[in-house]
Amino acid sequence: MFPTYDVIVVGAGHAGCEAAIAAANLGAKVLMATMNLQTIAQMSCNPAMGGVGKGQIVREIDALGGYSGIITDETMVQFRLLNRSKGPAMWSPRAQSDRMAFALNWREKLEAHENVDFWQEMVTGVIVKDGRIEGIHTSLGLEIPAKSVVLTNGTFLNGTIHIGEKQFGGGRAGERASTGLTAQLTELGFEAGRMKTGTPARLDGRSLHWDRMELQPGDENPGRFSYTNTPPLVDQMPCHITYTSPAVHDTLREGFDRSPMFNGRIRGIGPRYCPSIEDKIDRFAGRDRHQLFVEPEGRNTCEIYVNGFSSSLPEDVQYKALRKIVGFEDAKMFRPGYAIEYDFFQPTQLQATLETHLVSGLYFAGQINGTTGYEEAACQGLMAGMNAALKVQERDAFVLKRSDAYIGVLIDDLINKGTEEPYRMFTSRAEYRILLRQDDADLRLSPLAAELGVRNMDARMERVEAKKEAVEAIRYEMTHRSVTPDQMNGWLTKVGTAELNQGVKMMSLLGRHEVSLLGLGEAVPEFQAFLDQHDAETINLAEVTMKYEGYIEREKAAVAKVNRLEGIKLGSAFDYETLNTLSKEARQKLNKLKPRTIGQASRISGVSPADVSVLLVHLGR
Amino acid sequence: MFPTYDVIVVGAGHAGCEAAIAAANLGAKVLMATMNLQTIAQMSCNPAMGGVGKGQIVREIDALGGYSGIITDETMVQFRLLNRSKGPAMWSPRAQSDRMAFALNWREKLEAHENVDFWQEMVTGVIVKDGRIEGIHTSLGLEIPAKSVVLTNGTFLNGTIHIGEKQFGGGRAGERASTGLTAQLTELGFEAGRMKTGTPARLDGRSLHWDRMELQPGDENPGRFSYTNTPPLVDQMPCHITYTSPAVHDTLREGFDRSPMFNGRIRGIGPRYCPSIEDKIDRFAGRDRHQLFVEPEGRNTCEIYVNGFSSSLPEDVQYKALRKIVGFEDAKMFRPGYAIEYDFFQPTQLQATLETHLVSGLYFAGQINGTTGYEEAACQGLMAGMNAALKVQERDAFVLKRSDAYIGVLIDDLINKGTEEPYRMFTSRAEYRILLRQDDADLRLSPLAAELGVRNMDARMERVEAKKEAVEAIRYEMTHRSVTPDQMNGWLTKVGTAELNQGVKMMSLLGRHEVSLLGLGEAVPEFQAFLDQHDAETINLAEVTMKYEGYIEREKAAVAKVNRLEGIKLGSAFDYETLNTLSKEARQKLNKLKPRTIGQASRISGVSPADVSVLLVHLGR
Ligand SMILES: Cc1cc2nc3c(=O)[nH]c(=O)nc-3n(C[C@H](O)[C@H](O)[C@H](O)COP(=O)(O)OP(=O)(O)OC[C@H]3O[C@@H](n4cnc5c(N)ncnc54)[C@H](O)[C@@H]3O)c2cc1C
Ligand SMILES: Cc1cc2nc3c(=O)[nH]c(=O)nc-3n(C[C@H](O)[C@H](O)[C@H](O)COP(=O)(O)OP(=O)(O)OC[C@H]3O[C@@H](n4cnc5c(N)ncnc54)[C@H](O)[C@@H]3O)c2cc1C
Repeated sequence: MFPTYDVIVVGAGHAGCEAAIAAANLGAKVLMATMNLQTIAQMSCNPAMGGVGKGQIVREIDALGGYSGIITDETMVQFRLLNRSKGPAMWSPRAQSDRMAFALNWREKLEAHENVDFWQEMVTGVIVKDGRIEGIHTSLGLEIPAKSVVLTNGTFLNGTIHIGEKQFGGGRAGERASTGLTAQLTELGFEAGRMKTGTPARLDGRSLHWDRMELQPGDENPGRFSYTNTPPLVDQMPCHITYTSPAVHDTLREGFDRSPMFNGRIRGIGPRYCPSIEDKIDRFAGRDRHQLFVEPEGRNTCEIYVNGFSSSLPEDVQYKALRKIVGFEDAKMFRPGYAIEYDFFQPTQLQATLETHLVSGLYFAGQINGTTGYEEAACQGLMAGMNAALKVQERDAFVLKRSDAYIGVLIDDLINKGTEEPYRMFTSRAEYRILLRQDDADLRLSPLAAELGVRNMDARMERVEAKKEAVEAIRYEMTHRSVTPDQMNGWLTKVGTAELNQGVKMMSLLGRHEVSLLGLGEAVPEFQAFLDQHDAETINLAEVTMKYEGYIEREKAAVAKVNRLEGIKLGSAFDYETLNTLSKEARQKLNKLKPRTIGQASRISGVSPADVSVLLVHLGR
Repeated sequence: MFPTYDVIVVGAGHAGCEAAIAAANLGAKVLMATMNLQTIAQMSCNPAMGGVGKGQIVREIDALGGYSGIITDETMVQFRLLNRSKGPAMWSPRAQSDRMAFALNWREKLEAHENVDFWQEMVTGVIVKDGRIEGIHTSLGLEIPAKSVVLTNGTFLNGTIHIGEKQFGGGRAGERASTGLTAQLTELGFEAGRMKTGTPARLDGRSLHWDRMELQPGDENPGRFSYTNTPPLVDQMPCHITYTSPAVHDTLREGFDRSPMFNGRIRGIGPRYCPSIEDKIDRFAGRDRHQLFVEPEGRNTCEIYVNGFSSSLPEDVQYKALRKIVGFEDAKMFRPGYAIEYDFFQPTQLQATLETHLVSGLYFAGQINGTTGYEEAACQGLMAGMNAALKVQERDAFVLKRSDAYIGVLIDDLINKGTEEPYRMFTSRAEYRILLRQDDADLRLSPLAAELGVRNMDARMERVEAKKEAVEAIRYEMTHRSVTPDQMNGWLTKVGTAELNQGVKMMSLLGRHEVSLLGLGEAVPEFQAFLDQHDAETINLAEVTMKYEGYIEREKAAVAKVNRLEGIKLGSAFDYETLNTLSKEARQKLNKLKPRTIGQASRISGVSPADVSVLLVHLGR
């Protein structure tokens, strides 16, 4: 009934969608097998993309030819660049999408790809022969043959939903759980664990007192995620802000004895950085209020998401507490918040390509790897999909280094350190933050994707080249154009910085905190005329690279030093037990994790600098 | 946590949506409680509304202030008026909608109504005290209080999906079944049965050879369902037609031994008039082909619905057979067809208002009553919703007679005769077909809804009045305008009818088969100028009422006679066992079904004309 697919992607969440399209864009014949074709790209939690650390990932996905950025741009209702007051390494785009439009758009894009086929059914197992993947089993007992399989089951594997003292099976509110797969994988030798996450109640926007809350509008000049020419955002919708209070906390505490989190019924580990409201009250007992973001679910619905109020307390407690919040006095609920427990697989069982060590051609991506968040899921899908296609085509793997991208950091963290709690991205996880800015992910990554032959990179590459040239032109102008005290001193005084005594090149002024390119344009009309030839994105990029040149060069040097180790490959067939000068722990860990490079080996916990020296000596370095 | 609602509607299919909005439009405070808010108004089977007998119902729903017609108009991709070659009683509008747009549109309309609240959860029971409804139980153990409850659970009650030899619980592909409710209702004394229905495979439109199939375009001047000012349909999409063949039938027969229909695994009774393809082959063994309509699921999806190929044969058999159909040689499936078995409740347990005899304030509407089809479900929802609201407001019930509407026929059939197989509407079920045309449902029904105070009827009533006046004006013109042989004979000869010898009033010509109003306009320019003042709908209505005046008057007289009996009310508290001149069967049936009128009593199977006479004598008539 089915041809042998190059890649079967199981699941159609963010990971599955990116995986399918990424493999297809490398020319692979792909089957997307998912439980319900009507729920493709359903956002399980709030309809927002990006945020600190995460917005960078979406930019990177886009730079590599993924679709999350484009689809967010095409369906967003609000855009904000967070952390504007901090350094550019911290600037993080975030957008709210229209939930329904987002899902529809993904489905349309997938259908529009002639390399992607669809099958609606629950996948109950994988077919493995002699350590190689051969396809999947479905609930109807079908066997669908494939050269590689990417599992992106998200929160569905033996999912259990908790609300207060009640619990029932489910992969997401109103959807059923996925059964069978964990058991089979465990039998094959995989190690599974249990995690949990949660979501807040949904409210009826018609019942809220908007005027009692703070307005949180989108950016005045909203940006976008994609480096392609996505349409500008018009008609932005505002969010609102309100706060919990001691009265709210007291009410919530009344339910603590019935909380599945506190009475031990939930054993899975929850995301520390996306805690439930009961967690926050418990852990930060001193704080008498927590901020809540009141976010629309879309343009044409009154459904409201209460960001920050995730809870698995009994529904009556949630309700009572919600009604004590300013603006929510008469709130009606559509459904209570809940927690969900699900199976995940310790990601130390994966290679840097997200292929499993145990089964050749089997990849895991997304929440199944112990991560949390759409962006984290999407970027893993992209990398797994690309690598599955590349492997089928017998081409080299595509691996990003920690210094290349947040995506590199994420995967490197996962496969070397594993995770004991739902892993989410933070800027602090990246040691080369200043190199991993959201403003130049295209310059960093698009050439890599283009070189691999990812489809539709041409327009992106043209923009990359143009951007590079423009940045160079601006730098040239800055290093060659002189300004005089007469020209500048009025403006310099106005912005509060020292006057000039003699003429200088403009570049020398840019180091000052108070001076920006647009500021210089204000002072020097001819320079403004020059700037007018470039778009805001390019001007911003040029400014950041010039202003932070020192830092950037220093980090690049550090990277070069470290990457020497990244360049030294380790064979995956090697048995480390034979190297008895290695510590025992190192031998075990290295045999289990099979690092690709000395660099990767050096980041495995349990592998000491001494062990690294042993390895270097062994390799004759 | 909840106020006491006037009406809780359980379920958000066609029945549930119409019920909620109908009650709300009568001023009731409504809660829509459904398993998944993302699947509001999901069309379980093909995304089409209307058809023979069914299109009339949609027009009637619209005339009564329901929304199915408006939403279909706003989301349709194709419109056809079926049976155009037959008499006007048979003309039946049918439209294909965009599946996703249809569901979204319903959700928006429901959310826009301030009287409708929402709750997402499975309802597991009803709260009954002293024979009166008091609310519902949910899976979380919540109790939501209400003065009345409308159950519209569709195919979800203990739903079991069958494909070949496999079976699993589910309310619709990818959705879970509803459990608990049947058991509780049975305990309360309700009688449940089992029915089944089925749906065909979905195909990937990108894999079909469209040029090998017949094109079936929409109407050149597409009409619409609603009597309101819905936007005209632009950019129609075509359907296609293809056929099964002996080879296809042979292939399907290979799976008969594994068919759940033929090997007895499915015991529920299926819809005779919507049979599966295996049924058709089995029952019409002499036919060597069956027509299939290849229908798009929407504007932006390649998913294709194969109308006429419903099947629960093993998926490999479906697939093999599909690939033998012209145009489907390389077809890819999204999912196989399946059959679904579910619980229903014999509708003889209902009053004419769709309130149950057993529990005051509890209403059943839709597929739960043993019907099949969206239109049948929607109109029951409308009537149950209105009556639930009216009862809460202590107002008179709203019941349509068989001579008022197809809706009247449907409910009257259900409650008096019950049904042994999924009940669908046909024009042949209506004895007063010529009075129940789709062209004047507004004139028949909108005044009734307006009188009840249904919201938003003003614009409809203005159109009704204008239409009536216009029809009268056209009639006046026809009876007063004379034409001469000179004016007419050329045209009369051209259309093939006898010439005139002397001047006549135009009306006298309309009796001829070959003559229409627009034809007369062609012959007489001044008359055309007159017609130009009126829209096509009005001209059509005027023509039908004048051309068929004889039939119409005769049927009206018949109705008047019969309706004498409809006017004679029977008390619902009366114990027929005390009337021992009634036959035993009549006494039992009358006590069980508690007819509202002598007319209704006369249609109960087992109640003879002699029994009716006894009743009349008893009432002193
Ligand atoms: C209730 C809830 C709350 C959350 N809260 C947060 C939060 O506060 N912050 C945060 O960052 N993240 C949160 N998340 C996590 C976020 O939703 C996920 O990280 C992200 O959606 C994971 O994407 P994914 O593609 O890995 O999986 P999912 O989006 O879960 O998609 C899984 C897909 O696989 C399909 N599938 C599963 N099993 C099978 C099978 N056997 N056969 C076929 N198809 C299958 C499903 O139908 C679905 O399409 C939450 C998730 C849930 C459910
Ligand atoms: C597979 C299939 C094939 C069909 N084929 C045909 C066909 O060929 N021709 C034809 O005319 N008709 C067909 N039908 C029937 C048609 O779909 C139904 O007649 C129509 O949809 C019934 O509408 P409804 O509103 O009664 O129920 P449904 O549309 O079934 O809606 C039921 C609603 O109730 C909700 N619900 C159910 N139980 C609960 C609960 N306990 N708590 C909360 N919510 C609940 C569900 O989530 C859903 O929203 C088919 C149906 C199915 C499923």
